[in-house]
Amino acid sequence: MTFTKRTHNCGELRTAQIGKTVTLNGWVDGRRDLGGMIFIDLRDRWGITQVTFVPQHNAEVHERAHELRSEYVLSITGTVQGRPEGQENKDMATGEIEILVDEFQILNRAEVLPFEIEDEVEAHEDLRLKYRYLDLRRPLMQKYAMLRSSVYQVVHSYFAEHDFVEVETPTFIKSTPEGARDFLVPSRIHRGKFYALPQSPQMYKQILMVAGFDRYVQIVKCFRDEDFRADRQPEFTQIDLEMSFVTAEDVYAITEGLVARMLKECIGYDVQTPFLRMSYDDAMEQYGTDKPDLRFDMKLVPLNDLVVNSGFKVFADAAQKGGTVTGFCVKGKAEYSRKQLDELTEVAKKFGAGGLVWMKVEAAEMKSPVAKFLSPEILAQIQSAMGAEEGDLLLIVADADKRKAQKAAGSLRLHLGKELGLCDPNKHALLWVVDFPMFAYNEEEGVWEPEHHAFTSPKAEDIEKMDTDPGAVRADCYDFVWNGNEAASGSIRIHDSAMQTKIFERLGLSDEELQEKFGFLVESFKYGAPPHGGIALGLDRVVAILAGLTSIREVIAFPKTNTALSLMDGSPSMVDERALKDLHLDIRKEEKKP
Amino acid sequence: MTFTKRTHNCGELRTAQIGKTVTLNGWVDGRRDLGGMIFIDLRDRWGITQVTFVPQHNAEVHERAHELRSEYVLSITGTVQGRPEGQENKDMATGEIEILVDEFQILNRAEVLPFEIEDEVEAHEDLRLKYRYLDLRRPLMQKYAMLRSSVYQVVHSYFAEHDFVEVETPTFIKSTPEGARDFLVPSRIHRGKFYALPQSPQMYKQILMVAGFDRYVQIVKCFRDEDFRADRQPEFTQIDLEMSFVTAEDVYAITEGLVARMLKECIGYDVQTPFLRMSYDDAMEQYGTDKPDLRFDMKLVPLNDLVVNSGFKVFADAAQKGGTVTGFCVKGKAEYSRKQLDELTEVAKKFGAGGLVWMKVEAAEMKSPVAKFLSPEILAQIQSAMGAEEGDLLLIVADADKRKAQKAAGSLRLHLGKELGLCDPNKHALLWVVDFPMFAYNEEEGVWEPEHHAFTSPKAEDIEKMDTDPGAVRADCYDFVWNGNEAASGSIRIHDSAMQTKIFERLGLSDEELQEKFGFLVESFKYGAPPHGGIALGLDRVVAILAGLTSIREVIAFPKTNTALSLMDGSPSMVDERALKDLHLDIRKEEKKP
Repeated sequence: MTFTKRTHNCGELRTAQIGKTVTLNGWVDGRRDLGGMIFIDLRDRWGITQVTFVPQHNAEVHERAHELRSEYVLSITGTVQGRPEGQENKDMATGEIEILVDEFQILNRAEVLPFEIEDEVEAHEDLRLKYRYLDLRRPLMQKYAMLRSSVYQVVHSYFAEHDFVEVETPTFIKSTPEGARDFLVPSRIHRGKFYALPQSPQMYKQILMVAGFDRYVQIVKCFRDEDFRADRQPEFTQIDLEMSFVTAEDVYAITEGLVARMLKECIGYDVQTPFLRMSYDDAMEQYGTDKPDLRFDMKLVPLNDLVVNSGFKVFADAAQKGGTVTGFCVKGKAEYSRKQLDELTEVAKKFGAGGLVWMKVEAAEMKSPVAKFLSPEILAQIQSAMGAEEGDLLLIVADADKRKAQKAAGSLRLHLGKELGLCDPNKHALLWVVDFPMFAYNEEEGVWEPEHHAFTSPKAEDIEKMDTDPGAVRADCYDFVWNGNEAASGSIRIHDSAMQTKIFERLGLSDEELQEKFGFLVESFKYGAPPHGGIALGLDRVVAILAGLTSIREVIAFPKTNTALSLMDGSPSMVDERALKDLHLDIRKEEKKP
Repeated sequence: MTFTKRTHNCGELRTAQIGKTVTLNGWVDGRRDLGGMIFIDLRDRWGITQVTFVPQHNAEVHERAHELRSEYVLSITGTVQGRPEGQENKDMATGEIEILVDEFQILNRAEVLPFEIEDEVEAHEDLRLKYRYLDLRRPLMQKYAMLRSSVYQVVHSYFAEHDFVEVETPTFIKSTPEGARDFLVPSRIHRGKFYALPQSPQMYKQILMVAGFDRYVQIVKCFRDEDFRADRQPEFTQIDLEMSFVTAEDVYAITEGLVARMLKECIGYDVQTPFLRMSYDDAMEQYGTDKPDLRFDMKLVPLNDLVVNSGFKVFADAAQKGGTVTGFCVKGKAEYSRKQLDELTEVAKKFGAGGLVWMKVEAAEMKSPVAKFLSPEILAQIQSAMGAEEGDLLLIVADADKRKAQKAAGSLRLHLGKELGLCDPNKHALLWVVDFPMFAYNEEEGVWEPEHHAFTSPKAEDIEKMDTDPGAVRADCYDFVWNGNEAASGSIRIHDSAMQTKIFERLGLSDEELQEKFGFLVESFKYGAPPHGGIALGLDRVVAILAGLTSIREVIAFPKTNTALSLMDGSPSMVDERALKDLHLDIRKEEKKP
């Protein structure tokens, strides 16, 4: 179609252009008919400009303008003029001018929309996802998309400046260690065979180090076929990097530089580097989680020493049996009602606590259902240890399983932090959690499993404990925690084929499995693999955090639902018999439930 | 492991650093033992530095150095010193210095390699692909990877400067129009349903225009399950872009700017914009292809007018029946022997020609098997029309199917161009081929099919012919041709839902098919779609061209073979029964061949 192309976008005209003839292309954002004059807010990605149809100026054009409706696409040509005194709009970048229309053309019409294009949309998310192309027109969604685009730009330029090589790793790969969660792609040419889609490019980026690329980065789509939980996507994006001849310190430094740059360039936030570092043990003890949210305080305080000989069986037992008694102080909440405390107890139980002990610090005494079991001295010591003052509420969990008690208390801390609005929304709390255990014992299957993944190097000083005390071996891995989210995770890798084999043995992999699953990587280590390590940042989460959002769906252009459906295009969908035949596949009949 | 980290890389030391103590980390590229001194070329991504072990300097270190072998990974510390007079190497950036080693550490050992790490590798490509991590250590392969990385950087910065938004479109989509070539991903959660992997993000980028993003770009992995031909990959990478409120001219300008920038920044080549434009008809007539290689001339010359009444039946028939008689002049090749000409005839036949007429321009006469059927006047006219001089060879093809004759002659032209080395390897020939036909008639199935794709807009002036003469309708699409490769392809899209429906009808799609396949896009056009158009560049091909290579496998880090195998990781591979059960799939038994 032929149409008059814009001379300017809808966000750039100012008083300096008054008197100029201009053409704008855009959407009708709103329309008002006032005393014969018709005002249109014309919108594009860059902003909104008011255009005015005046019967005295051009009667025919004004008459035709009566047809215009919301979301019609227009090309308008007219003269920039200052708005009349008192009609300026200081909230709009273009609010001091308007366009007196000489001519216009309707480039496309619009039916009545399923919901309005405005930030405060009331439509259900399902409707927004179905009409994503309308949802994405909302200025807020455009802002998120621009923010995401600016994050890409920071990544591109930052790593180029630091001499990283951008390399694309393959999307069709061999099924990986975490194989059970691989998405698979049937091969048509090779009957009965499948490619896997990468859950991460882990082995390939390590191969790139073996190949001598030294510093690799890629923004890469990854795939995981999980049972869908809230805010998980079958496909997600990572900022993936790997470096040779480095220790963890080098990975911290490059990551911190990136994050600081993102905060500064994308949202104008200044942050100091280096970031805080916290051991896994400390994080668990003080926050009851390996991804503590440091935007608010309310630390856990272990009370074992105070209560181990208290005689109060619940506490003493937990402390004596290698567990813990731990809790935190909620400032000024001694006012909580019995009902509120009962509710908190239920929440704590949901988080795995056996029960919840509360204590109110009142003027004369500590008020608590368990006060009678504890001496006044111990109560005073507890109050003091937890930094409690009059009017504060103490919440305490005890369990013979230390981690269980810590996790329950930590989850309760987070729950209350959110409920009480303790997080400063304008603050970013960034830290490294380090010194994770290398292995976790899987009680059910009676095997040791890697906490991070099978390619992570144990800490040099812990290697000797590998056979004697695997649970005490720490891994040379690190999580980057941002406002309570695990925003990135990485490690120094094993680069020695003997060590790698030893780890695989420790994990109970047979030679055959090893060869089948990781053969090419282990093989590559025989030909001169350099020391190397890296990290991967979850880009969707990072953008959501920068945008101040909790849902990553808001920062993904075309997300799937929690059950992995695309409501816009209707995928996944049935395919025809011919396609199945080409792929040598049959759909299994559903097994009857017995 | 603990090791001494480098202070410099292996490519950066110069005479300015003489006297400094430095540490380098890298691979043993080569080793010479000369009169008691041991010389190691230490290599990393940045270059090679000579390190020297001298017994008089440090006997113990020198003794240990005897163990070193090719591709061992080292950390060496020593003093930079100038090389002795006459031993400088001007071909190496670091060739004026060497490192006198004080201390070193073996970071990893290497077994004997399956092939040498050097540019002139004799190993079969299969072996190179299996040990890709070694293949990629070769300086040439590293150079290609760096070139590819620099192309990404140009794309990132160029489009950011031009205010494009980078958006990720989904990898799990609905099966597309070209559905038969989709790779499919079975859903575990939704029994019997599949996602498709995108052959291109076509519909999604158009949706982004409907959503008002105005200028979109993405470097995106795409997938096509073709029967593999040489140099095709199941996954490939596109530079994908789309723009709103534009005509083809705007797309040309942005693409030309990008290509000029790539040529300049990545390989230092200057090119003038705008590029040449050529209609599809002219390209076919003059070069017998829609992707002419203009690095050499040797144009086709249609001879219809000269031969239509010649009386020579082969020529006259072709000309009279709507076909063509066309050929080209090979400079100085009248010397070709009968054997050579017979071989050329076979080549021409393989390209679809019924036969090949040759004429040698000799001093006294035109020598040709068909000379006796043509008058001396016509022979002289042919010679003149084809710009032939004494010593030249004319090659002529005739067919009642015009395109068939053109294609055969064009392919023969290309064949000879390559064989005779007519392409200047230092020249880049860039052009747009435009004015493609909108539809092609599929004789077999008796239907019209889109030449480009179903979303391409017809040229405004041809719309009226849509019903009466579909074959004469031209599309508003364009191919960007680079050294004879279709490096990019794009079009102005339909943005009007009525027009889109009309095109679909013309293509014989039922309402149901339409709804099933393209429903969401057509639906989106009802809510204010702007005029828009775009293009996609084949990144793998572009990098190969910039590198002066013909095979894209050389510029892909981990390519598949022509039968879509990964020789390094062994994918695709069998999966276990549990995985199949989870996906509700069975492998079909192979049908017995009757």
